[in-house]
Amino acid sequence: MIGIFDSGVGGMTVARAVEQALPEHGLIYFGDLARTPYGSKSPETISNYARQNTQFLIEQGAKLIIIACNTAASIASDTLRREFNLPIFEVITPAVAKAVATSKSGRIGVIGTRATINSNIYEEKIRHLAAKVKVFSQPCPLLAPLVEEGWLNKRETKMILRRYLSPLKQQQVDTLVLGCTHYPLLKELIQPRIGKRTKVIDSSHEVAAELKAFLAENPALASQLSPEKEKRYYVSDLTEATLATANLIFGRTIELSKVTI
Amino acid sequence: MIGIFDSGVGGMTVARAVEQALPEHGLIYFGDLARTPYGSKSPETISNYARQNTQFLIEQGAKLIIIACNTAASIASDTLRREFNLPIFEVITPAVAKAVATSKSGRIGVIGTRATINSNIYEEKIRHLAAKVKVFSQPCPLLAPLVEEGWLNKRETKMILRRYLSPLKQQQVDTLVLGCTHYPLLKELIQPRIGKRTKVIDSSHEVAAELKAFLAENPALASQLSPEKEKRYYVSDLTEATLATANLIFGRTIELSKVTI
Repeated sequence: MIGIFDSGVGGMTVARAVEQALPEHGLIYFGDLARTPYGSKSPETISNYARQNTQFLIEQGAKLIIIACNTAASIASDTLRREFNLPIFEVITPAVAKAVATSKSGRIGVIGTRATINSNIYEEKIRHLAAKVKVFSQPCPLLAPLVEEGWLNKRETKMILRRYLSPLKQQQVDTLVLGCTHYPLLKELIQPRIGKRTKVIDSSHEVAAELKAFLAENPALASQLSPEKEKRYYVSDLTEATLATANLIFGRTIELSKVTI
Repeated sequence: MIGIFDSGVGGMTVARAVEQALPEHGLIYFGDLARTPYGSKSPETISNYARQNTQFLIEQGAKLIIIACNTAASIASDTLRREFNLPIFEVITPAVAKAVATSKSGRIGVIGTRATINSNIYEEKIRHLAAKVKVFSQPCPLLAPLVEEGWLNKRETKMILRRYLSPLKQQQVDTLVLGCTHYPLLKELIQPRIGKRTKVIDSSHEVAAELKAFLAENPALASQLSPEKEKRYYVSDLTEATLATANLIFGRTIELSKVTI
């Protein structure tokens, strides 16, 4: 099974992309809705939650892990790789690689939660690949709550997006990384506000493509994932609003099981 | 000691009101920022958190508890009264009493998180006191995140407030209950948007007044609270943004200690 976790429902955009790219493999998703959001919490607390989530997925049969939460990926991926002996993917690295390959002007914008942006992980990883690239980062702490409310086409959402994006537009970034798994749901509002010439990078597609390439090169591991084709979706808390957002993300009715971890 | 808990920083508006009304007593505050917000979580999860928070405050020496979180008060106050043998106050009952005493037209508005409004607690409690009163409720799930961001004077906050308040204004409520402890920080934006003739009820003042009256009638309990005049503020997670909001609420520098419960 492929194990995927997020602080909430946003990571389901990653699960959807993985389902589409690798329909032949089993998948377990865990959304930590009882403790969501991670974006405003401290590094110590976020690492602790990431560790518990990974342990749960392994107990459920996961043979590899995708950290489908930018906040947890930025804070806790090194910790998890040290502590757990299985391949750990995350949403940041493949998005960074794609952004660097895409940008022609060398001016890349990144949007994310306050914790992700403050961690400076995107800037560091981009500079590591391309030292001369200029990175412009913008924390957007209200976007995830707006998505969770389903305010995907409200005037206030558009205004808040314009406020967040206008500094990046002024800096004439030619590539914009969506550094939070909630943001793909706002992609159609983001594109016109950042400008149609700016390429918007959606990390859910990039991590799914990276995983697909990795499994093609590691058939032994791929065969361990294959036996069970079922998809299981767990959450640590369940409300009507969560179900509605999950169904919106997948475009079908999703069965969510509540577990205490 | 007076024990006060909330899911986050909002309950500090209650702690501030209690400090002002009862400066002679010790006070312990616990803000459950590691698991905030409660407003979007399930009743079972909220009750579990409320129980753990109460236990922590009792271990720290609390002789009475104020549930300074409308969501927890609406979901968990009966559970806590059953399980713990000490006086338990909460922010809803005194605000309801004040609203019923204030309203002349018998049309009362209530704003709060989705969990608080869905619990129907305000409507039930108001009807219990005054069966003929009409209650108009409006969930405002984005207001607490806006306050936590410090967007207290942004145009988007005003627009979102107008969107939330206009149905209540159309219903010509003459009294509006702020059913979330974050909202007193928005009171100056709320008053002109609901109309200057509408009386806005701030539950932090009402619960402090209720507690003061109760202690005047219960000198034995009051004397148990007296020995320690210190004020202690605990949180389950600590970030710069939390410190900034705490200082904003108290109008002074607050020392917050991080604890794991």
